[in-house]
Amino acid sequence: MKTQVAIIGGGPSGLLLSQRLHLAGVETVILERQTRDYVLSRIRAGVLEQGLADQLRQAGVGERMDREGEVHEGTEITFEDHRLHINFRELVGKTVMVYGQTEVTRDLYKARDDMQGTIIHEAQDVALHDTDTDSPYVTFTKDGEEHRLDCDFIAGCDGFHGPSRKSIPADKLRVYEKVYPFGWLGVLSETPPVSEELIYSGHPRGFALCSLRSRTLSRYYVQVSSQDKVEDWSDDRFWEELKARLPQDAADRLVTGPSIEKSIAPLRSFVAEPMTHGRMFLVGDSAHIVPPTGAKGLNLAASDVFYLSTALISYYKTGAETELHDYSAKALRRIWLAERFSWWMTTLLHKFDEEAFDVRVKRAELDFLMSSRAAQAALAENYVGLPYD
Amino acid sequence: MKTQVAIIGGGPSGLLLSQRLHLAGVETVILERQTRDYVLSRIRAGVLEQGLADQLRQAGVGERMDREGEVHEGTEITFEDHRLHINFRELVGKTVMVYGQTEVTRDLYKARDDMQGTIIHEAQDVALHDTDTDSPYVTFTKDGEEHRLDCDFIAGCDGFHGPSRKSIPADKLRVYEKVYPFGWLGVLSETPPVSEELIYSGHPRGFALCSLRSRTLSRYYVQVSSQDKVEDWSDDRFWEELKARLPQDAADRLVTGPSIEKSIAPLRSFVAEPMTHGRMFLVGDSAHIVPPTGAKGLNLAASDVFYLSTALISYYKTGAETELHDYSAKALRRIWLAERFSWWMTTLLHKFDEEAFDVRVKRAELDFLMSSRAAQAALAENYVGLPYD
Repeated sequence: MKTQVAIIGGGPSGLLLSQRLHLAGVETVILERQTRDYVLSRIRAGVLEQGLADQLRQAGVGERMDREGEVHEGTEITFEDHRLHINFRELVGKTVMVYGQTEVTRDLYKARDDMQGTIIHEAQDVALHDTDTDSPYVTFTKDGEEHRLDCDFIAGCDGFHGPSRKSIPADKLRVYEKVYPFGWLGVLSETPPVSEELIYSGHPRGFALCSLRSRTLSRYYVQVSSQDKVEDWSDDRFWEELKARLPQDAADRLVTGPSIEKSIAPLRSFVAEPMTHGRMFLVGDSAHIVPPTGAKGLNLAASDVFYLSTALISYYKTGAETELHDYSAKALRRIWLAERFSWWMTTLLHKFDEEAFDVRVKRAELDFLMSSRAAQAALAENYVGLPYD
Repeated sequence: MKTQVAIIGGGPSGLLLSQRLHLAGVETVILERQTRDYVLSRIRAGVLEQGLADQLRQAGVGERMDREGEVHEGTEITFEDHRLHINFRELVGKTVMVYGQTEVTRDLYKARDDMQGTIIHEAQDVALHDTDTDSPYVTFTKDGEEHRLDCDFIAGCDGFHGPSRKSIPADKLRVYEKVYPFGWLGVLSETPPVSEELIYSGHPRGFALCSLRSRTLSRYYVQVSSQDKVEDWSDDRFWEELKARLPQDAADRLVTGPSIEKSIAPLRSFVAEPMTHGRMFLVGDSAHIVPPTGAKGLNLAASDVFYLSTALISYYKTGAETELHDYSAKALRRIWLAERFSWWMTTLLHKFDEEAFDVRVKRAELDFLMSSRAAQAALAENYVGLPYD
């Protein structure tokens, strides 16, 4: 089998990359370890920056998002009963789109199917070869048979645990990491959301987030200890803890109901540098992880896709490799800015086991944020997404 | 001896408080442990917020400052050869005044002398009594004789090591503290400053600051280890290290010369709460210390003076104690905002022994600061001084 760009991983970044390249006449094959149903069962965040929404529209995949997604013009940040509304449109002239990552993936699958894109599901034992030569290739097994996919380039869109990053020799890779001593316990429930906008709530008991998928589907989170297990948290306990961390009127307004999904996710910051090894390029979670505070994960993968697709298209048009050489540095600059923002929002709003001085400094930072339009604008710039440049 | 407000400490905050009260017809006596010459020999920073400059003018002490001080419309922040000019006037419509703290003190002494204010120097063994009653008093010895000063109120303007804070029972006081693992080595030299504005320089080798007292008197600092002694640093070594931490063209332009003063100051963040015990009020360094990055120390003492003098004047006019009751909370709000800012600037620009991830996050924060006008405005708001409210 032969293609121009072999894409490892059939999540939203691999699919979007494939779609963008296809539209520019560049051939791809996507290899995905899981079944399509499995991929579509993964529940993820759903705050899309304008940059990602625009990319989906440009790729002909924005129609349902524009119909069913909700444009959010702001978000709320609270601390106990102190409340701050961040009006993105007023502060920085932009908005975000709330539309589940699962829906984005579904729309991208449909678009790839419509264009007869090649997606090989249940590709096992994927291995990358000769990535630092001009003729890299990928091997995998499917239904017990071995396959080889020759290509010009490999895009590693295979997430944190995938084989792409691991194929880079350890001495060529520098890794930066921070593990937070807590996780997010998330509950999905078929209840009307407590607010039309997201509420990020700092509280002496810990962080809470009120999010939503639609007008009838709510997604809530509370910060829990890293040691906690889902079994420790009955629905009742979850709702009670959530209420205790919200401003009074939000707690009073909260409609509770049975959870239809409940899980704990750890929080981690991670960056691997560089994102290029020869003719292999890392994209999204395979190279970097952010804690979910600020909703940057998918959006960062999308800017990687933008930079890499632009560079590949330019290469196939002109033969010039400059943009491919610049990919890693260009993507990493924006990644570090988002890592900084995600770390900052996480640190500001979560409860840590920290010195009393540091707790008070964080309170003062919230106080400053609540009183300074400039500080609010700086937050909004990051939240709606820094420019792709 | 009897007065209305006994002021412990004859530094700039005690003097300014005395002057403001005197102008409103409230009597004060200042007790100072040192000689006047000693007080005037202490070299301190000299960046005055507009709020302090205005207070000095209102108190009739602004004339020489307005003649000899330098209005700074901005400052420079650099990292290696990356440079950012923060234009205060453009960003937030305010400026700062560069005028040495020693000069402020000198002008205040002159004003107190002109008004025949009572300042008792070399007051030893100062002790506060009955501060939680309606008739507090202060005892001290002078020239071997014991004295007693009866008063309505006591203002503790006696710095971090003075007796005022220590007179508060330990169980009534909560202390917040952070000690930084480095100090500032400062050099004063009769050389023209490398820049008309201050340069705050972050660098992988450590922080440096180019400051100035006048067009012919420069004040430079470099971050050094807490273990370092002044004797470890010859003038040559100092100049070399400073040059290594500045952008190339600043290093090339730097005029060096013999140091006329050289010292190492530790960096510390400290807040004691509350700032009131009965009829005793802490002002300035006796209640809080900031690291010098951002030049907030004297300015914070000045806002304390503003709040306390306003409250005392109101009390003597109306008999109402409301403002006196609110003094601590009101002062502390602004203090914590400045503690946050000073901690942030210190953390951002100094070298710490920290995880690689944290180093990169700080680089990203500098990158964001250099690219975001909103972030620059937030910095400028703090630097020129948050409103007194």
